[in-house]
Amino acid sequence: MASDSRPLLYSFYRSSCSWRVRLALSIKGIAYDTKSINLLTEENKTKEYKQIQPFGAIPAFVDDINEDNTPLIESAAIIEYLDETRPENPLLPKDPRERAIVRSLVYAIAMGIQPICSIRVLKFIGKDNEEEWTKHFMSEGFAAFEKLLQRTAGKYAFGDTITMADLFLVPQFFNGLRFGVDMTAYPIMSRINSTLEQLEAFKAAHPTRQPDCPPELRQ
Amino acid sequence: MASDSRPLLYSFYRSSCSWRVRLALSIKGIAYDTKSINLLTEENKTKEYKQIQPFGAIPAFVDDINEDNTPLIESAAIIEYLDETRPENPLLPKDPRERAIVRSLVYAIAMGIQPICSIRVLKFIGKDNEEEWTKHFMSEGFAAFEKLLQRTAGKYAFGDTITMADLFLVPQFFNGLRFGVDMTAYPIMSRINSTLEQLEAFKAAHPTRQPDCPPELRQ
Repeated sequence: MASDSRPLLYSFYRSSCSWRVRLALSIKGIAYDTKSINLLTEENKTKEYKQIQPFGAIPAFVDDINEDNTPLIESAAIIEYLDETRPENPLLPKDPRERAIVRSLVYAIAMGIQPICSIRVLKFIGKDNEEEWTKHFMSEGFAAFEKLLQRTAGKYAFGDTITMADLFLVPQFFNGLRFGVDMTAYPIMSRINSTLEQLEAFKAAHPTRQPDCPPELRQ
Repeated sequence: MASDSRPLLYSFYRSSCSWRVRLALSIKGIAYDTKSINLLTEENKTKEYKQIQPFGAIPAFVDDINEDNTPLIESAAIIEYLDETRPENPLLPKDPRERAIVRSLVYAIAMGIQPICSIRVLKFIGKDNEEEWTKHFMSEGFAAFEKLLQRTAGKYAFGDTITMADLFLVPQFFNGLRFGVDMTAYPIMSRINSTLEQLEAFKAAHPTRQPDCPPELRQ
């Protein structure tokens, strides 16, 4: 459970869904504690963790401002919650139509790419088919996302202000590279990713800067 | 484009994502026009439709209240937009923590089940493997959703008021039945689905009541 003074994030350094929430916390300047849940050793499947998150997914988030400290789950829900409870550095525009456009960018990744290429799907697909699978669905998803960016992008995914969409773009871009997708095929996404990577808030949330990152990968 | 007086929904009668938006429109009592996009004949892949939705997914929504009538896309983004622009019969609670819980129910379906069992994934999987695949991932996803409902459900998915979560529950339940999943294994979900099915707003949004439903299936 959360300490008396800070919210607690159940996270794994290289989980893209944990990374999204770390980015929101970092951009908003919210101090928090981390409890590492190692997906590779299946710590997420222990009885103890399933009392926190009933189906063993990460991240989970316990806020210190609530009396009921049942963890909040699902990265996009946690980020909307953070934006509603900590309005500084907003992650969504004020106008409903613009909010819908930012959310459609978010979901193009969070529904259109990530679930299909998640660990539990890849385990079912099997090692031999993993590469063909991820390349197919990530490429298809990135092509769709790039088309949306043609309509929406400025300096960042939506205009010139950082939004929730950028928090989903960066971890998915990283996963594209990790699975050998040719990311040069998506020039707008590549350009935005490079711009975001330079920002201190994004550096701080990077997998290689997390306490549970193996020492040989840390930066 | 939208008529002068009513919003326009690009929809297909048996698309679960279109169904979610029809439910929101129906619950809020918003009159709208429908343009059918037949997924089976791949009308969604025509050049004309791709000018509306750049990667050929449905639904898409053109609102008559906006000057810019570029369609909004992604069902969850359209529903949040409808809730922000038409506050009557709200689909999310007011409290941020409760909103996060409802959204986590939404995403447990919209990210945790639907994308993995979508038409484009099943096409890649192939007819021979479709049944094993959908039964595996739908059962896994429904089991997770049922565990969330143990914490959240009242008469409906979240307490005793209809929320956005119910709009995602009903179409996914229908798809579970369609793919032969034993839905009696999820008693809370089954009970809520039966309750919702009785409501006039839910009847009106049902696939079998849509103008593009083949006559032999219409009710």
